[in-house]
Amino acid sequence: MTADTRERLIESAIDLVLTSGYQAVGVKEICQHAQVQKGSFYHFFPSKRDLIIEALNRQWARHTQLLLDPVFNESIPPLDRIVKMFEVTSAHQAHLQKTYGRVFGCPFGNLAQELSTHDEPLREKLTLIFHEWTAYIESALLEAVTLGELSTNVPLGETAQSVLAYLEGVMLMAKTYNDPFLIQRNAQNAKLMIQNTII
Amino acid sequence: MTADTRERLIESAIDLVLTSGYQAVGVKEICQHAQVQKGSFYHFFPSKRDLIIEALNRQWARHTQLLLDPVFNESIPPLDRIVKMFEVTSAHQAHLQKTYGRVFGCPFGNLAQELSTHDEPLREKLTLIFHEWTAYIESALLEAVTLGELSTNVPLGETAQSVLAYLEGVMLMAKTYNDPFLIQRNAQNAKLMIQNTII
Repeated sequence: MTADTRERLIESAIDLVLTSGYQAVGVKEICQHAQVQKGSFYHFFPSKRDLIIEALNRQWARHTQLLLDPVFNESIPPLDRIVKMFEVTSAHQAHLQKTYGRVFGCPFGNLAQELSTHDEPLREKLTLIFHEWTAYIESALLEAVTLGELSTNVPLGETAQSVLAYLEGVMLMAKTYNDPFLIQRNAQNAKLMIQNTII
Repeated sequence: MTADTRERLIESAIDLVLTSGYQAVGVKEICQHAQVQKGSFYHFFPSKRDLIIEALNRQWARHTQLLLDPVFNESIPPLDRIVKMFEVTSAHQAHLQKTYGRVFGCPFGNLAQELSTHDEPLREKLTLIFHEWTAYIESALLEAVTLGELSTNVPLGETAQSVLAYLEGVMLMAKTYNDPFLIQRNAQNAKLMIQNTII
Protein backbone atom coordinates (compact mmCIF):
# COMPACT_ATOMS: atom_id res chain seq x y z
CA MET A 1 0.00 0.00 0.00
CA THR A 2 2.97 2.33 0.65
CA ALA A 3 4.25 2.20 -2.91
CA ASP A 4 0.68 2.65 -4.09
CA THR A 5 0.23 5.84 -2.02
CA ARG A 6 3.42 7.31 -3.50
CA GLU A 7 2.20 6.37 -6.98
CA ARG A 8 -1.15 8.06 -6.42
CA LEU A 9 0.58 11.26 -5.31
CA ILE A 10 2.77 11.30 -8.43
CA GLU A 11 -0.18 10.62 -10.74
CA SER A 12 -2.26 13.30 -9.01
CA ALA A 13 0.57 15.81 -9.43
CA ILE A 14 0.65 14.99 -13.16
CA ASP A 15 -3.14 15.34 -13.43
CA LEU A 16 -3.35 18.61 -11.49
CA VAL A 17 -0.06 20.52 -11.52
CA LEU A 18 1.12 19.56 -15.00
CA THR A 19 -2.20 20.79 -16.42
CA SER A 20 -3.18 23.70 -14.12
CA GLY A 21 0.17 25.04 -12.95
CA TYR A 22 2.38 24.88 -9.89
CA GLN A 23 1.02 27.83 -7.91
CA ALA A 24 -2.60 27.05 -8.76
CA VAL A 25 -2.52 23.67 -6.99
CA GLY A 26 -1.60 23.09 -3.34
CA VAL A 27 -0.40 20.01 -1.47
CA LYS A 28 -3.87 19.82 0.07
CA GLU A 29 -5.58 19.49 -3.32
CA ILE A 30 -3.01 16.96 -4.52
CA CYS A 31 -3.67 14.86 -1.38
CA GLN A 32 -7.45 15.11 -1.83
CA HIS A 33 -7.18 14.04 -5.46
CA ALA A 34 -4.90 11.13 -4.48
CA GLN A 35 -7.09 10.22 -1.48
CA VAL A 36 -4.07 10.48 0.78
CA GLN A 37 -3.94 12.11 4.25
CA LYS A 38 -1.91 15.32 4.18
CA GLY A 39 0.24 13.98 7.03
CA SER A 40 1.33 11.04 4.84
CA PHE A 41 2.47 13.35 2.04
CA TYR A 42 5.64 14.39 3.86
CA HIS A 43 6.46 10.76 4.57
CA PHE A 44 6.95 10.31 0.83
CA PHE A 45 8.17 13.71 -0.31
CA PRO A 46 10.10 16.35 1.67
CA SER A 47 8.29 19.11 -0.28
CA LYS A 48 5.88 19.85 -3.11
CA ARG A 49 8.91 20.59 -5.28
CA ASP A 50 10.29 17.07 -4.73
CA LEU A 51 6.97 15.57 -5.80
CA ILE A 52 6.93 17.75 -8.93
CA ILE A 53 10.44 16.64 -9.86
CA GLU A 54 9.23 13.03 -9.66
CA ALA A 55 6.11 13.93 -11.66
CA LEU A 56 8.29 15.58 -14.32
CA ASN A 57 10.50 12.48 -14.52
CA ARG A 58 7.41 10.34 -14.98
CA GLN A 59 5.82 12.65 -17.55
CA TRP A 60 9.06 12.95 -19.51
CA ALA A 61 9.41 9.15 -19.62
CA ARG A 62 5.85 8.97 -20.98
CA HIS A 63 6.48 11.78 -23.44
CA THR A 64 9.52 10.04 -24.90
CA GLN A 65 7.78 6.67 -24.98
CA LEU A 66 4.49 7.80 -26.49
CA LEU A 67 5.42 10.84 -28.61
CA LEU A 68 9.14 10.95 -29.35
CA ASP A 69 10.34 7.35 -29.72
CA PRO A 70 7.68 6.47 -32.35
CA VAL A 71 8.62 9.58 -34.34
CA PHE A 72 12.42 9.51 -34.02
CA ASN A 73 12.45 6.15 -35.69
CA GLU A 74 14.84 4.86 -38.34
CA SER A 75 11.96 3.95 -40.66
CA ILE A 76 11.12 7.67 -41.13
CA PRO A 77 13.50 9.90 -43.17
CA PRO A 78 15.33 12.08 -40.60
CA LEU A 79 13.94 15.51 -41.52
CA ASP A 80 10.43 14.09 -41.84
CA ARG A 81 10.71 13.05 -38.18
CA ILE A 82 10.66 16.76 -37.31
CA VAL A 83 7.49 17.29 -39.36
CA LYS A 84 6.00 14.20 -37.73
CA MET A 85 6.89 15.51 -34.25
CA PHE A 86 4.79 18.63 -34.92
CA GLU A 87 1.94 16.55 -36.38
CA VAL A 88 1.87 14.08 -33.50
CA THR A 89 1.96 16.95 -31.00
CA SER A 90 -0.96 18.58 -32.81
CA ALA A 91 -2.95 15.33 -32.73
CA HIS A 92 -2.20 14.87 -29.02
CA GLN A 93 -3.35 18.42 -28.18
CA ALA A 94 -6.46 17.89 -30.33
CA HIS A 95 -7.19 14.77 -28.28
CA LEU A 96 -6.81 16.75 -25.04
CA GLN A 97 -9.12 19.44 -26.41
CA LYS A 98 -11.72 16.85 -27.39
CA THR A 99 -11.55 15.24 -23.94
CA TYR A 100 -11.22 18.28 -21.67
CA GLY A 101 -12.32 21.16 -23.93
CA ARG A 102 -8.89 22.80 -23.80
CA VAL A 103 -5.51 22.74 -25.51
CA PHE A 104 -3.21 22.35 -22.50
CA GLY A 105 0.06 23.05 -24.31
CA CYS A 106 3.36 21.53 -23.26
CA PRO A 107 3.54 20.40 -19.61
CA PHE A 108 7.28 21.16 -19.56
CA GLY A 109 6.96 24.53 -21.34
CA ASN A 110 4.11 25.49 -19.03
CA LEU A 111 6.13 24.87 -15.89
CA ALA A 112 9.28 26.41 -17.39
CA GLN A 113 7.31 29.58 -18.13
CA GLU A 114 5.78 29.68 -14.67
CA LEU A 115 8.78 28.74 -12.54
CA SER A 116 12.08 29.59 -14.26
CA THR A 117 12.42 32.96 -12.57
CA HIS A 118 11.70 31.78 -9.05
CA ASP A 119 12.53 28.12 -8.49
CA GLU A 120 16.10 27.26 -9.35
CA PRO A 121 15.95 23.45 -8.80
CA LEU A 122 12.82 23.16 -10.98
CA ARG A 123 14.34 25.44 -13.63
CA GLU A 124 17.42 23.19 -13.72
CA LYS A 125 15.26 20.06 -13.98
CA LEU A 126 13.39 21.62 -16.93
CA THR A 127 16.62 22.61 -18.71
CA LEU A 128 17.71 18.96 -18.46
CA ILE A 129 14.45 17.86 -20.07
CA PHE A 130 14.85 20.44 -22.86
CA HIS A 131 18.45 19.25 -23.35
CA GLU A 132 17.31 15.65 -23.80
CA TRP A 133 14.54 16.73 -26.18
CA THR A 134 17.05 18.82 -28.19
CA ALA A 135 19.33 15.75 -28.39
CA TYR A 136 16.52 13.77 -30.09
CA ILE A 137 16.22 16.48 -32.73
CA GLU A 138 19.97 16.89 -33.10
CA SER A 139 20.48 13.18 -33.74
CA ALA A 140 17.96 13.36 -36.59
CA LEU A 141 19.77 16.37 -38.05
CA LEU A 142 23.11 14.54 -37.83
CA GLU A 143 21.61 11.58 -39.67
CA ALA A 144 20.28 13.94 -42.35
CA VAL A 145 23.80 15.34 -42.81
CA THR A 146 25.25 11.82 -43.02
CA LEU A 147 22.70 10.90 -45.69
CA GLY A 148 23.50 14.09 -47.64
CA GLU A 149 20.02 15.49 -47.03
CA LEU A 150 21.27 18.46 -45.04
CA SER A 151 24.22 20.75 -45.61
CA THR A 152 27.27 20.19 -43.41
CA ASN A 153 27.19 23.96 -42.79
CA VAL A 154 24.09 23.77 -40.60
CA PRO A 155 25.03 24.16 -36.90
CA LEU A 156 23.28 21.09 -35.51
CA GLY A 157 23.00 21.87 -31.79
CA GLU A 158 21.76 25.42 -32.26
CA THR A 159 19.34 24.43 -35.01
CA ALA A 160 17.92 21.61 -32.89
CA GLN A 161 17.37 24.12 -30.10
CA SER A 162 15.65 26.50 -32.55
CA VAL A 163 13.29 23.72 -33.67
CA LEU A 164 12.33 22.95 -30.08
CA ALA A 165 11.83 26.69 -29.38
CA TYR A 166 9.58 26.89 -32.44
CA LEU A 167 7.56 23.87 -31.28
CA GLU A 168 7.21 25.37 -27.79
CA GLY A 169 6.11 28.67 -29.34
CA VAL A 170 3.43 27.12 -31.54
CA MET A 171 2.21 25.08 -28.56
CA LEU A 172 1.86 28.31 -26.57
CA MET A 173 -0.09 29.95 -29.41
CA ALA A 174 -2.25 26.82 -29.84
CA LYS A 175 -3.02 26.96 -26.12
CA THR A 176 -3.82 30.67 -26.17
CA TYR A 177 -6.07 30.38 -29.22
CA ASN A 178 -7.37 26.98 -28.04
CA ASP A 179 -6.61 25.71 -31.55
CA PRO A 180 -4.55 22.49 -31.73
CA PHE A 181 -4.24 22.60 -35.54
CA LEU A 182 -2.09 25.71 -35.33
CA ILE A 183 0.71 23.26 -34.44
CA GLN A 184 0.13 21.13 -37.53
CA ARG A 185 0.05 24.21 -39.80
CA ASN A 186 3.64 24.93 -38.73
CA ALA A 187 5.00 21.41 -39.28
CA GLN A 188 6.38 21.88 -42.81
CA ASN A 189 7.76 25.28 -41.82
CA ALA A 190 9.95 23.62 -39.20
CA LYS A 191 11.57 21.39 -41.83
CA LEU A 192 12.11 24.37 -44.13
CA MET A 193 13.63 26.33 -41.28
CA ILE A 194 16.22 23.58 -40.77
CA GLN A 195 17.05 23.31 -44.44
CA ASN A 196 17.57 27.05 -44.75
CA THR A 197 19.47 27.70 -41.55
CA ILE A 198 22.63 29.74 -41.95
CA ILE A 199 25.58 29.93 -39.60
CA MET B 1 -4.90 61.35 -4.95
CA THR B 2 -7.60 58.99 -6.22
CA ALA B 3 -6.17 58.77 -9.73
CA ASP B 4 -2.75 58.34 -8.17
CA THR B 5 -3.91 55.37 -6.08
CA ARG B 6 -5.35 53.66 -9.16
CA GLU B 7 -2.07 54.34 -10.98
CA ARG B 8 -0.02 52.80 -8.20
CA LEU B 9 -2.15 49.66 -8.27
CA ILE B 10 -1.69 49.28 -12.03
CA GLU B 11 2.06 49.85 -11.82
CA SER B 12 2.36 47.40 -8.91
CA ALA B 13 0.46 44.78 -10.91
CA ILE B 14 2.91 45.27 -13.78
CA ASP B 15 5.89 45.02 -11.42
CA LEU B 16 4.64 41.95 -9.56
CA VAL B 17 2.16 39.92 -11.63
CA LEU B 18 3.65 40.53 -15.07
CA THR B 19 7.01 39.30 -13.80
CA SER B 20 6.13 36.63 -11.19
CA GLY B 21 2.79 35.31 -12.45
CA TYR B 22 -0.89 35.65 -11.67
CA GLN B 23 -1.30 32.93 -9.05
CA ALA B 24 1.99 33.75 -7.32
CA VAL B 25 0.85 37.26 -6.37
CA GLY B 26 -2.26 38.12 -4.33
CA VAL B 27 -4.29 41.30 -4.01
CA LYS B 28 -2.72 41.75 -0.57
CA GLU B 29 0.81 41.85 -1.97
CA ILE B 30 -0.21 44.18 -4.79
CA CYS B 31 -1.75 46.56 -2.21
CA GLN B 32 1.35 46.40 0.01
CA HIS B 33 3.63 47.13 -2.95
CA ALA B 34 1.36 50.03 -4.01
CA GLN B 35 1.03 51.27 -0.40
CA VAL B 36 -2.74 51.11 -0.74
CA GLN B 37 -5.21 49.79 1.88
CA LYS B 38 -6.78 46.53 0.76
CA GLY B 39 -10.24 48.03 1.31
CA SER B 40 -9.49 50.72 -1.28
CA PHE B 41 -8.55 48.14 -3.91
CA TYR B 42 -12.15 47.16 -4.60
CA HIS B 43 -13.11 50.82 -4.93
CA PHE B 44 -10.97 50.93 -8.08
CA PHE B 45 -11.22 47.38 -9.43
CA PRO B 46 -14.05 44.86 -9.03
CA SER B 47 -11.49 42.02 -9.03
CA LYS B 48 -7.85 41.13 -9.45
CA ARG B 49 -8.68 40.09 -13.01
CA ASP B 50 -9.94 43.61 -13.83
CA LEU B 51 -6.72 45.10 -12.53
CA ILE B 52 -4.67 42.67 -14.61
CA ILE B 53 -6.61 43.59 -17.76
CA GLU B 54 -5.74 47.25 -17.11
CA ALA B 55 -2.11 46.27 -16.42
CA LEU B 56 -2.01 44.32 -19.71
CA ASN B 57 -3.41 47.33 -21.60
CA ARG B 58 -0.74 49.53 -20.06
CA GLN B 59 2.08 47.05 -20.67
CA TRP B 60 0.98 46.47 -24.27
CA ALA B 61 0.92 50.24 -24.92
CA ARG B 62 4.48 50.43 -23.57
CA HIS B 63 5.57 47.39 -25.55
CA THR B 64 4.34 48.91 -28.83
CA GLN B 65 5.81 52.31 -28.00
CA LEU B 66 9.23 51.16 -26.81
CA LEU B 67 9.85 47.93 -28.73
CA LEU B 68 7.57 47.63 -31.77
CA ASP B 69 7.06 51.15 -33.14
CA PRO B 70 10.81 51.89 -33.39
CA VAL B 71 11.34 48.57 -35.22
CA PHE B 72 8.32 48.54 -37.54
CA ASN B 73 9.53 51.75 -39.08
CA GLU B 74 9.58 52.73 -42.74
CA SER B 75 13.28 53.53 -42.61
CA ILE B 76 14.09 49.81 -42.06
CA PRO B 77 13.63 47.33 -44.98
CA PRO B 78 10.48 45.32 -44.12
CA LEU B 79 12.02 41.88 -43.57
CA ASP B 80 14.87 43.38 -41.57
CA ARG B 81 12.25 44.72 -39.16
CA ILE B 82 11.59 41.11 -38.16
CA VAL B 83 15.30 40.51 -37.51
CA LYS B 84 15.41 43.78 -35.58
CA MET B 85 12.37 42.75 -33.48
CA PHE B 86 14.28 39.65 -32.31
CA GLU B 87 17.44 41.69 -31.65
CA VAL B 88 15.64 44.40 -29.69
CA THR B 89 13.80 41.74 -27.66
CA SER B 90 17.13 40.07 -26.91
CA ALA B 91 18.67 43.38 -25.80
CA HIS B 92 15.64 44.12 -23.60
CA GLN B 93 15.81 40.70 -21.92
CA ALA B 94 19.58 41.15 -21.46
CA HIS B 95 18.86 44.45 -19.74
CA LEU B 96 16.35 42.75 -17.41
CA GLN B 97 18.87 40.03 -16.65
CA LYS B 98 21.57 42.61 -15.86
CA THR B 99 19.17 44.52 -13.58
CA TYR B 100 17.31 41.66 -11.85
CA GLY B 101 19.54 38.63 -12.54
CA ARG B 102 16.85 36.92 -14.61
CA VAL B 103 15.48 36.70 -18.12
CA PHE B 104 11.77 37.27 -17.48
CA GLY B 105 10.54 36.32 -20.95
CA CYS B 106 7.43 37.81 -22.51
CA PRO B 107 4.90 39.24 -20.02
CA PHE B 108 2.06 38.36 -22.42
CA GLY B 109 3.37 34.88 -23.24
CA ASN B 110 3.93 34.19 -19.54
CA LEU B 111 0.33 35.02 -18.63
CA ALA B 112 -1.05 33.25 -21.71
CA GLN B 113 0.82 30.11 -20.67
CA GLU B 114 -0.36 30.34 -17.08
CA LEU B 115 -3.99 31.38 -17.60
CA SER B 116 -5.33 30.27 -21.00
CA THR B 117 -6.81 27.04 -19.68
CA HIS B 118 -8.58 28.56 -16.68
CA ASP B 119 -9.46 32.22 -17.14
CA GLU B 120 -11.52 32.87 -20.26
CA PRO B 121 -11.64 36.72 -20.07
CA LEU B 122 -7.86 36.94 -19.61
CA ARG B 123 -7.30 34.38 -22.39
CA GLU B 124 -9.44 36.52 -24.71
CA LYS B 125 -7.55 39.68 -23.73
CA LEU B 126 -4.26 37.93 -24.52
CA THR B 127 -5.49 36.67 -27.91
CA LEU B 128 -6.34 40.31 -28.79
CA ILE B 129 -2.81 41.37 -27.87
CA PHE B 130 -1.33 38.54 -29.98
CA HIS B 131 -3.63 39.58 -32.85
CA GLU B 132 -2.36 43.16 -32.73
CA TRP B 133 1.23 41.96 -32.55
CA THR B 134 0.66 39.64 -35.52
CA ALA B 135 -0.79 42.60 -37.47
CA TYR B 136 2.50 44.51 -37.01
CA ILE B 137 4.40 41.59 -38.52
CA GLU B 138 1.86 41.02 -41.28
CA SER B 139 2.02 44.66 -42.40
CA ALA B 140 5.80 44.32 -42.80
CA LEU B 141 5.34 41.12 -44.82
CA LEU B 142 2.78 42.85 -47.05
CA GLU B 143 5.21 45.70 -47.67
CA ALA B 144 7.92 43.16 -48.56
CA VAL B 145 5.56 41.61 -51.13
CA THR B 146 4.73 45.06 -52.55
CA LEU B 147 8.46 45.82 -52.89
CA GLY B 148 9.06 42.47 -54.62
CA GLU B 149 11.20 41.24 -51.70
CA LEU B 150 8.84 38.40 -50.81
CA SER B 151 6.95 35.96 -53.00
CA THR B 152 3.24 36.61 -53.48
CA ASN B 153 2.76 32.92 -52.64
CA VAL B 154 3.61 33.39 -48.95
CA PRO B 155 0.41 33.29 -46.83
CA LEU B 156 0.87 36.54 -44.90
CA GLY B 157 -1.43 36.09 -41.91
CA GLU B 158 -0.33 32.55 -41.10
CA THR B 159 3.34 33.38 -41.61
CA ALA B 160 3.08 36.42 -39.34
CA GLN B 161 1.53 34.17 -36.69
CA SER B 162 4.37 31.65 -37.14
CA VAL B 163 6.95 34.40 -36.64
CA LEU B 164 5.29 35.50 -33.40
CA ALA B 165 5.07 31.87 -32.24
CA TYR B 166 8.78 31.47 -32.97
CA LEU B 167 9.61 34.65 -31.03
CA GLU B 168 7.47 33.46 -28.09
CA GLY B 169 9.22 30.08 -28.20
CA VAL B 170 12.74 31.52 -28.17
CA MET B 171 11.71 33.86 -25.33
CA LEU B 172 10.54 30.82 -23.36
CA MET B 173 13.82 29.01 -24.00
CA ALA B 174 15.81 32.16 -23.15
CA LYS B 175 13.90 32.36 -19.88
CA THR B 176 14.40 28.68 -19.06
CA TYR B 177 18.14 28.78 -19.82
CA ASN B 178 18.40 32.32 -18.37
CA ASP B 179 20.24 33.25 -21.59
CA PRO B 180 18.94 36.37 -23.38
CA PHE B 181 21.26 35.92 -26.38
CA LEU B 182 19.42 32.78 -27.40
CA ILE B 183 16.82 35.20 -28.83
CA GLN B 184 19.40 37.06 -30.91
CA ARG B 185 20.87 33.81 -32.27
CA ASN B 186 17.47 33.07 -33.81
CA ALA B 187 16.95 36.49 -35.43
CA GLN B 188 18.27 35.67 -38.92
CA ASN B 189 16.47 32.32 -38.82
CA ALA B 190 13.16 34.13 -38.49
CA LYS B 191 13.79 36.07 -41.71
CA LEU B 192 14.84 32.88 -43.52
CA MET B 193 11.72 31.14 -42.25
CA ILE B 194 9.55 33.83 -43.84
CA GLN B 195 11.41 33.77 -47.15
CA ASN B 196 11.10 30.00 -47.40
CA THR B 197 7.53 29.55 -46.25
CA ILE B 198 5.39 27.41 -48.50
CA ILE B 199 1.63 27.38 -48.75
